[in-house]
Amino acid sequence: MRAIVYLIGAGPGAPDLITLRGYRCLQQAEVVIYDHRVHADVLQYAPAQAERIDVGGGSGDASAQDAICFLIAEKAREGKIVARLKRGDPFLFDHGGEEALFLHEQGIPFELVPGVPTAIGATAYAGIPITYPGGGDTVTLVRGFEDDGRERTRLNWDHLAGLGGTIACFAGPRQLPRMIEALIAHGRPADESAAVIVNGTLPSQRTMTGTLAELAESVAEQPVGAALLIVGRVVNFREHLRWFDSRALFGRRALVMHSKEQPDDIATLLEHRGAEVKVDTDAGLDVYRLLLDRKVDVVTFTSASAVLGFLASVGADQASDLLAHTAVATLGPAAADAITRANLTPAIHLDNGSLPAFAEAIAGHFTPAP
Amino acid sequence: MRAIVYLIGAGPGAPDLITLRGYRCLQQAEVVIYDHRVHADVLQYAPAQAERIDVGGGSGDASAQDAICFLIAEKAREGKIVARLKRGDPFLFDHGGEEALFLHEQGIPFELVPGVPTAIGATAYAGIPITYPGGGDTVTLVRGFEDDGRERTRLNWDHLAGLGGTIACFAGPRQLPRMIEALIAHGRPADESAAVIVNGTLPSQRTMTGTLAELAESVAEQPVGAALLIVGRVVNFREHLRWFDSRALFGRRALVMHSKEQPDDIATLLEHRGAEVKVDTDAGLDVYRLLLDRKVDVVTFTSASAVLGFLASVGADQASDLLAHTAVATLGPAAADAITRANLTPAIHLDNGSLPAFAEAIAGHFTPAP
Repeated sequence: MRAIVYLIGAGPGAPDLITLRGYRCLQQAEVVIYDHRVHADVLQYAPAQAERIDVGGGSGDASAQDAICFLIAEKAREGKIVARLKRGDPFLFDHGGEEALFLHEQGIPFELVPGVPTAIGATAYAGIPITYPGGGDTVTLVRGFEDDGRERTRLNWDHLAGLGGTIACFAGPRQLPRMIEALIAHGRPADESAAVIVNGTLPSQRTMTGTLAELAESVAEQPVGAALLIVGRVVNFREHLRWFDSRALFGRRALVMHSKEQPDDIATLLEHRGAEVKVDTDAGLDVYRLLLDRKVDVVTFTSASAVLGFLASVGADQASDLLAHTAVATLGPAAADAITRANLTPAIHLDNGSLPAFAEAIAGHFTPAP
Repeated sequence: MRAIVYLIGAGPGAPDLITLRGYRCLQQAEVVIYDHRVHADVLQYAPAQAERIDVGGGSGDASAQDAICFLIAEKAREGKIVARLKRGDPFLFDHGGEEALFLHEQGIPFELVPGVPTAIGATAYAGIPITYPGGGDTVTLVRGFEDDGRERTRLNWDHLAGLGGTIACFAGPRQLPRMIEALIAHGRPADESAAVIVNGTLPSQRTMTGTLAELAESVAEQPVGAALLIVGRVVNFREHLRWFDSRALFGRRALVMHSKEQPDDIATLLEHRGAEVKVDTDAGLDVYRLLLDRKVDVVTFTSASAVLGFLASVGADQASDLLAHTAVATLGPAAADAITRANLTPAIHLDNGSLPAFAEAIAGHFTPAP
């Protein structure tokens, strides 16, 4: 066994935006030390028996950072393969560099696994090309400070504002309005296009666009949490290039009850339409818990046996209560019969149709009438 | 079948630095349209029967770009799943935005799959954290122009040089010296630290560091091809954080002759030491061709049957010529006997040792005496 530390960027948010290399390092990990902004599903890539340690927000007070460095080193000294996971890229306005330097000083071998930065991933998912001919020849990434104590003046705002091109800054709720105001004060036009992206690349992604002046007002009035600010003409492309958050089932959560007679392609068809899909056969999935926590917008049944399997797993007497806030979708008379016999009513039903037609019917249910 | 175009960033170079999502999109692809700077191994992620189309350098003459857009659209209109692959990120100083806009105008569905930018990946593999406390609060990514016709003055050099922080620019051989000179002329100190990284993240990675003035002279005298220029104090961390190009077998290519009696862990052990490893059982690998093209620095045998398999596959009478420029490494008396019987001599031999000891012996063979 060789002890090693992989310093890994998990990418901008969506679990599948980690690199293949990061994924393979995680598969070998015996210890995973992660910032809590890393998506829970990324942790699933590590073996079930791997130790998982949440070291919090990594917001940067020096003693907390020291403690993290010591923890990583300690686990490596036990001869373990350690995966140190951070959101985005570990070296872009994060503490990856400090951790690597500490490991070097301690003589512990490490490898650096870069990740897709939030500024790159969130813009792609918002339909904003981070550069475009005519949109300037520079992209400036700016450190965001959550820490109010840190002075803002270390940035040369005149040069930042004067450079043109795209500016990207991942900032906290208090800093966001200040950042926008400073850019305007130092010469970026108040009517320049900008966007604020919250939870970029995730099903909960929200994107606000407007002029700098409009966004300054809006984020001051209604703080949005940590968000990516994008300033520049490229933002205007969003109206044409939206693809992620414009899909019919974007932000909807579907539970697919799988059955032996039917292929589970319905999961893929719903994912193509933007839904976040879980299948009851997923490892470790607790259907009861998922419904109890109201984390399902639609549950699909494509056979009688899928219905019977569902009733068996949640308890037939609980089904009606559990489904009170969830749309039931059935395909074919057998599934509908079984649902009706359980005193439930499908909100979406196709008696006779293909799986794609069924997926379309579900998408139609959630699409507001024009 | 649904027609769709995935605009995918393949990442900075190494085939495993593509995202998991990019990898999965490729696995579904029926047509792969790629820039030739994409690593050949990335194309292997697509199904064997997928059509593969090289559309060249993407250096940006408008009619070539139009032709690429039409080609992508045509394949999608045939009802195909199209993967459009670019190196780095498709939207960072590349034509991804234009291609997406064209698809939008044509009513063809597309999804954007971001990639790790070269500036992020190559720095991590060079041991340069792209930011560090005290290294500035901005990273400015600058478009490089291969095209001599395009005027340089669109950049506001005073603001670029004045901003401080890290500057990263992927530039061609003619532009690189000009870029450095312009930065000095507009106020970056001539003795500021900088690095030039060629073939970042690949086994052929080369990194030069020095002051801006030193690098300006060196790249003017000896052009290096397209390269990433990094300017800023963060470059100084490389001496401590090198991990990729400092490994004993970095840049060495090993061929592992696999045998049934022995596990092929030797491949992993050599990879950990930085070697680029191929195993004779890899799909489509042509051992004869590989040796004929002198693409192997060391070939390993850990059993007699591995030797016999090798002789059978290349022809016993060819073996000596083919191995003239390759070190033969044998583990155990049986492998050595079989090699000797074929009138070959191992350059590296351990009669009695573990696989890790064997890997160490190979690493030692390639490590220059101090």
